[in-house]
Amino acid sequence: MNDKFILLATCKDKVGITSLIANLIAKYDANILHLDHFTEYNNNDDEGKLYLRFEFDKVPELKPVLEEELHKHDISFELFDSSENTRIALFVSKEDHAFNEVLLRIERGEIPAEVVCIVSNHENNRRFAENLNIPFYYVPNNEEKSVVEGKILKIVAEHNTDLIVLAKYMQILTDNFVSHHKHKIINIHHSFLPSFIGANPYKQAWERGVKFVGATSHYVTSDLDEGPIIEQDVTRVNHRYSVQDLRKIGRHVESTVLAQAVEYHVLHKVIITNNNKTVVFS
Amino acid sequence: MNDKFILLATCKDKVGITSLIANLIAKYDANILHLDHFTEYNNNDDEGKLYLRFEFDKVPELKPVLEEELHKHDISFELFDSSENTRIALFVSKEDHAFNEVLLRIERGEIPAEVVCIVSNHENNRRFAENLNIPFYYVPNNEEKSVVEGKILKIVAEHNTDLIVLAKYMQILTDNFVSHHKHKIINIHHSFLPSFIGANPYKQAWERGVKFVGATSHYVTSDLDEGPIIEQDVTRVNHRYSVQDLRKIGRHVESTVLAQAVEYHVLHKVIITNNNKTVVFS
Amino acid sequence: MNDKFILLATCKDKVGITSLIANLIAKYDANILHLDHFTEYNNNDDEGKLYLRFEFDKVPELKPVLEEELHKHDISFELFDSSENTRIALFVSKEDHAFNEVLLRIERGEIPAEVVCIVSNHENNRRFAENLNIPFYYVPNNEEKSVVEGKILKIVAEHNTDLIVLAKYMQILTDNFVSHHKHKIINIHHSFLPSFIGANPYKQAWERGVKFVGATSHYVTSDLDEGPIIEQDVTRVNHRYSVQDLRKIGRHVESTVLAQAVEYHVLHKVIITNNNKTVVFS
Amino acid sequence: MNDKFILLATCKDKVGITSLIANLIAKYDANILHLDHFTEYNNNDDEGKLYLRFEFDKVPELKPVLEEELHKHDISFELFDSSENTRIALFVSKEDHAFNEVLLRIERGEIPAEVVCIVSNHENNRRFAENLNIPFYYVPNNEEKSVVEGKILKIVAEHNTDLIVLAKYMQILTDNFVSHHKHKIINIHHSFLPSFIGANPYKQAWERGVKFVGATSHYVTSDLDEGPIIEQDVTRVNHRYSVQDLRKIGRHVESTVLAQAVEYHVLHKVIITNNNKTVVFS
Repeated sequence: MNDKFILLATCKDKVGITSLIANLIAKYDANILHLDHFTEYNNNDDEGKLYLRFEFDKVPELKPVLEEELHKHDISFELFDSSENTRIALFVSKEDHAFNEVLLRIERGEIPAEVVCIVSNHENNRRFAENLNIPFYYVPNNEEKSVVEGKILKIVAEHNTDLIVLAKYMQILTDNFVSHHKHKIINIHHSFLPSFIGANPYKQAWERGVKFVGATSHYVTSDLDEGPIIEQDVTRVNHRYSVQDLRKIGRHVESTVLAQAVEYHVLHKVIITNNNKTVVFS
Repeated sequence: MNDKFILLATCKDKVGITSLIANLIAKYDANILHLDHFTEYNNNDDEGKLYLRFEFDKVPELKPVLEEELHKHDISFELFDSSENTRIALFVSKEDHAFNEVLLRIERGEIPAEVVCIVSNHENNRRFAENLNIPFYYVPNNEEKSVVEGKILKIVAEHNTDLIVLAKYMQILTDNFVSHHKHKIINIHHSFLPSFIGANPYKQAWERGVKFVGATSHYVTSDLDEGPIIEQDVTRVNHRYSVQDLRKIGRHVESTVLAQAVEYHVLHKVIITNNNKTVVFS
Repeated sequence: MNDKFILLATCKDKVGITSLIANLIAKYDANILHLDHFTEYNNNDDEGKLYLRFEFDKVPELKPVLEEELHKHDISFELFDSSENTRIALFVSKEDHAFNEVLLRIERGEIPAEVVCIVSNHENNRRFAENLNIPFYYVPNNEEKSVVEGKILKIVAEHNTDLIVLAKYMQILTDNFVSHHKHKIINIHHSFLPSFIGANPYKQAWERGVKFVGATSHYVTSDLDEGPIIEQDVTRVNHRYSVQDLRKIGRHVESTVLAQAVEYHVLHKVIITNNNKTVVFS
Repeated sequence: MNDKFILLATCKDKVGITSLIANLIAKYDANILHLDHFTEYNNNDDEGKLYLRFEFDKVPELKPVLEEELHKHDISFELFDSSENTRIALFVSKEDHAFNEVLLRIERGEIPAEVVCIVSNHENNRRFAENLNIPFYYVPNNEEKSVVEGKILKIVAEHNTDLIVLAKYMQILTDNFVSHHKHKIINIHHSFLPSFIGANPYKQAWERGVKFVGATSHYVTSDLDEGPIIEQDVTRVNHRYSVQDLRKIGRHVESTVLAQAVEYHVLHKVIITNNNKTVVFS
């Protein structure tokens, strides 16, 4: 596969934007490999929003011209080079299922990314990490939160991390931490949000007698469990499932939902909207 | 198919209950066609609960003996004769999708029940009902609620109704009404409960940016949206769905979830537990 | 909603096609409401194929200019006006489930189309059709096939039919009939093709002990059960399902799969490729 | 959890069998924890078949009595002790996804079994196996098949293997090998059988343009791809999936379907019927 540029763009919807970008790309003899286009007029606003994603041949000279033009037309954008893999810091606590799933999919080349470091408040996943030759940092919660987070921010910075993935990290990050990696932290929540916010969602699910349990992967914001949802999935259960059974089957959903969300992110398929939602060009 | 008896039984779990019932059935030379058995020890109680469902050949002399024995052992039970179809009163407002689905499945013989009357606060579904030769009662909300419900209770009583199905009836029933038909009213709620309780769930779903919408069928209790859940289902959506699109695709889920819940009920596959949940022997 | 044009276009993939079309649309001050783009290089060919779908404001003067330009660049295309509903002839035999589902979704405005006539070799669905004021033609199979098909072709022609939907019509159409409505006949097949081709697929499914049954909606070609697939779905079953149970649950899948396929077609979201497949911009 | 006995029983359906077994269990003061019952009269035979599964308290003295009684009544059965984990030999080739999934679920205690040895015709999965302290045997295909299989049969025998799991082993086993482990070999096939039997099912799926791909786990018999199906699942795809994309998403389905089938088997939930199907008491 040849190298590609990937452009994510957002602006007020108006005539000519798609044409403008497509023209520039054609002018530099680059072929469009993929194009996603979404306009939204749901807000009862007079004006709509336009979301675009282009994949096209990597023609280096095109880059500065495109960027200048997009700035000129007041279009928010990010431009990625497909040859540069997203650098992921993977955070995990004791439970290893989501952690393993993300790691193994990346190892197999199913998700084009690089796990540059692993951070955990427990030692038990060290061996799995080190067998894959990934640096493992044990940062226990035995000090003040600001000190612990300071250590972690330093580790993450030293590894030039693009994305933090919380694979069942089970620690609440402070606003300060989150603000250093705004919209660059992905979490997996063990319920089909907004159901069962708060502690022990599987117990809540059992008590309510629901017929499905699910999981939600979202960007972390300062509002716990309220960040923009990237991906969700559910699985059917019935009265025979104890709380422990729900937890067990829920683990499989958590693992695949987190891995899918990470894949969408690193393929640059996600745009976060200004009303706390996502556009996922899946 | 020969006629069958169907027994739903609940009691404290202890050695010998299944044996007791199976023996009686065998003693009268009746064959067990289906047997479901569920014990639950999840409550952190010392004692467990046993839920049983037997389908067996209809041997009339067995009935009084079985009933006497079950009473003697303090077993709660219901005994049904498969040749007696459940008599349903179907309530509907303007929207016809769930109403049509339930009616058509019954008409095709997919759900073994009889719709004995239709009650609506609008006239628009009269033709569909009358083409199927089902009495249609227009009871508008133009009087005090107690008067309106009084009229409806009278209609329902005159038709010897076993079950009331709210196929998007969109009216909140009073505690008085519900108490007359305890655990005999099935509703369809247009969200995957407990998500989006309250008004306009599809708008709430759109605002939260969830990736699935769903529907929930439950028995009606005096706590709105809190009754025992019989059946749920969900369908995948994405950012392209407007509130109106969610409503449209949600209608299909609502229709099939309600029809499935009604089928479970009339096949006597549902036991309501004393912690506001259901055992559904599906 | 304002009127729109919808363009489906296919050509050899090369630089500048998307730009060309987007430019023309912008030049006439029309806004792009939706744009789907798909390139395929899977064929081990040197050259790829480009498939495009544009929805844009209806500016009448744009039409001839666009058509001329597309012809000049050797682009295959169809241009639709969203205000012109697809005229459907619905064919049905005795079983009514898929027939009802398609009719009711159209009646509710969920599928923007018009059923202009109903053709059946049985009388039993006449009442349902006539209640909706749709002409019902009873054409029994009591003559030579060529005579019967001749009558039907005449009916269909008189109603200016755009699309024939076989909602469990259960008759094999001759090549002659199919050639008169090439790629304009949609069938529902009662299996997850290519499984269980031929007679009695539910019996075959039962005998093989599969854990899902499904349905397939496809365009009809001269090769029975081999036309381009538009939509499929499946539903989980288990050892408890008899052949009759599979048929019953299968009916629900058949109904929704056919309705979905018809919706995709009338929204002009389907392009048939030259290797007997479909691109469905869902 | 206390130790349990698990009984799988099959016989001609007749009055009194369930009663007989339940009585014996009660007589020894053992509680029934779970009871599954299935009668099948689908074969157009005069007589039906009865399939039973009991889970009950482990009372050692009950065992010989129960066995004697079941023999006397001509009931086929297997009696298991829940404290004795199934001993699995896991076979793998190069691809590791299904292998990893089964291993990790067992490691986490999600599937109550023990992997006693790993057999592979490639070296690449050695490290993963040895990190879990499981003996890894490299048996390359560099000799006559009978010699290779002879070596493998010896390894499997030395480890007292109860079950062989082919986690993408990609070698066809001879009838001789299969006959040594009749109904004790589980395979994962990379299609939704009976679709796409034979080589390269994902390429076949791509060529036919199906809208779902799936996987099938079955017991291995001498008829390739024709053994009794234990579990299947599917996942939705569309025209954008290349053959390679189908293979990638198919891997996830293969992994979970195989793991689920193994779980059903080791929980003694599967009975193989005499018409090449399974009863899975899930």
